[in-house]
Amino acid sequence: MKRSLILAALLACTTAMAESPVAIAIHGGAGTILPENMTAEREKAIRSALEQSIRAGHEVLEAGGPSLEAVATALRVLEDAPEFNAGRGAVLTNTGTVEMDASIMDGRTLNAGAVASVKRIRHPIDAAKRVLHDSPHVMLMGEGAMSFAEEHGLEFKDEDWFITDFRREQLESIQADEQAATQLSEDWYSTVGAVALDADGNLAAATSTGGMANKRWGRVGDSPIIGAGTYADNRSCAVSATGHGEFFIRHVVAYSICSLMRHGGATLHEAADSIINGTLKELGADGGVIAIDAEGHIAMPFNTAGMYRATIDTEGQLQIAIYRDE
Amino acid sequence: MKRSLILAALLACTTAMAESPVAIAIHGGAGTILPENMTAEREKAIRSALEQSIRAGHEVLEAGGPSLEAVATALRVLEDAPEFNAGRGAVLTNTGTVEMDASIMDGRTLNAGAVASVKRIRHPIDAAKRVLHDSPHVMLMGEGAMSFAEEHGLEFKDEDWFITDFRREQLESIQADEQAATQLSEDWYSTVGAVALDADGNLAAATSTGGMANKRWGRVGDSPIIGAGTYADNRSCAVSATGHGEFFIRHVVAYSICSLMRHGGATLHEAADSIINGTLKELGADGGVIAIDAEGHIAMPFNTAGMYRATIDTEGQLQIAIYRDE
Repeated sequence: MKRSLILAALLACTTAMAESPVAIAIHGGAGTILPENMTAEREKAIRSALEQSIRAGHEVLEAGGPSLEAVATALRVLEDAPEFNAGRGAVLTNTGTVEMDASIMDGRTLNAGAVASVKRIRHPIDAAKRVLHDSPHVMLMGEGAMSFAEEHGLEFKDEDWFITDFRREQLESIQADEQAATQLSEDWYSTVGAVALDADGNLAAATSTGGMANKRWGRVGDSPIIGAGTYADNRSCAVSATGHGEFFIRHVVAYSICSLMRHGGATLHEAADSIINGTLKELGADGGVIAIDAEGHIAMPFNTAGMYRATIDTEGQLQIAIYRDE
Repeated sequence: MKRSLILAALLACTTAMAESPVAIAIHGGAGTILPENMTAEREKAIRSALEQSIRAGHEVLEAGGPSLEAVATALRVLEDAPEFNAGRGAVLTNTGTVEMDASIMDGRTLNAGAVASVKRIRHPIDAAKRVLHDSPHVMLMGEGAMSFAEEHGLEFKDEDWFITDFRREQLESIQADEQAATQLSEDWYSTVGAVALDADGNLAAATSTGGMANKRWGRVGDSPIIGAGTYADNRSCAVSATGHGEFFIRHVVAYSICSLMRHGGATLHEAADSIINGTLKELGADGGVIAIDAEGHIAMPFNTAGMYRATIDTEGQLQIAIYRDE
């Protein structure tokens, strides 16, 4: 081996050892995602958005930035991407409006922020982050949350900016067939989320969604609920969930996984798997989670046909997947 | 001993053994409740309302009714009583309106219902119970939740009906002194709640509140959050919380107590005490909980000067208390 190569190898090794590992995982929703229902064009757009999102989040971590900023950065990309049910491209309520929920949590301080049922805010995840940083509160909702976002200079867009033809047609189809309104569908569960570990060893989690297609009565799912859709605690793990929100609230899914690690002695994989493929599967409750622990282990169990997901692990390896057998 | 006395004793014993034990606990909020700040008249009204509430809930249990109905019945009394921060007599938002939150959970099925930021509904706890029974959802909020309540025939009152002189003066005093708006005050935490065990061995929990005085931006506290303010699971316990809501959300207080029992091997008292007088007290987070387990044990730890509370235990003994040393 040449001397220069040995030196380069030693240098690389030293660098890797000196730096603490960073890692990030994202999801774009779980559901009945099957190759036969997917066009090549749509699949390409989804994979491309997932890659752009996770690379943006990972860049923050590589630059030594906090996991809280990394997860928000990753979600801003997915909120803008019309393929996912969050921000632009979110599902429509039964009156044809877009009403969004988001939450974010800092595993170091256990500070958290959430907004529920907000309209016209381009990045609901930034509104949630502002609640965490700039208010004494955890959860703000509706018009009040929008006033808060406006006072704090968040970007607003016209309602039309959020609405895609795909979602208009989806709503028409659901409403044309009342039966379909009570059926499960992929699009009901297409929340987006991110979890990350930064170089300082801090965990964070974030989730953003348009909720359930054709929703009414001001229905709130698990995404803006700290404990249900989102939880982060350096002493255990960070979790973002996607699935049939009502079950995720009742079973306090995100916190349950952290609690099974911290109090039940489970590993990250055991904890996440026992909730998603144990508790929830037995109840017929569809969904999945992404979870990361303080060592950078990543678990992404789901009990549906597929889950849009991507990771960059502690080795810097990128993986993007949609279906079960990837 | 006379023969008739022996027979009576045997009969009483048989009856007690044949019946499964029932028990109920309620709270009217925790805070800086001190004798020197209390008038004799106000204390009498509070004790009277607590007694009326717990007797109403206990009657449901004695008649063999479900714990879910018992906790709702107890809370209807406290919602109507102007002394407590729920329903009539709730605190005012910074625009002088009454916006209420409530939640309820069935420990047998883990079904749950919650409403957030509703106005003019006389009994928010009944709206939450309707969400549990008559919708596929767990949480409804704002105007949507009010439409749901109206469609389901719930009683509405004029906004003025809810507003007491006491709350008007409180809001004026807070707003006159901006400083006070960030200070802790008894009235910020005067949530009401109930937990019960019925003759079938089922647990239930319920919580109702007007939230935080002078609140703005659509702030939602822990009371309507399943896991934070309310949780019930026959396998562990039923909990209703009252306190500085933001901390109760971050620490998923109600579910944490159930989880420490179920997964951490703690008794009810150990679990409730470790969260309230351990975790929360260390953070300076004021509040308390009422909790009951499947054997009818009741724990009511609080880390404040006082907590309005009452119990009727498995022996049928009534206790009403306000201050720490009662």
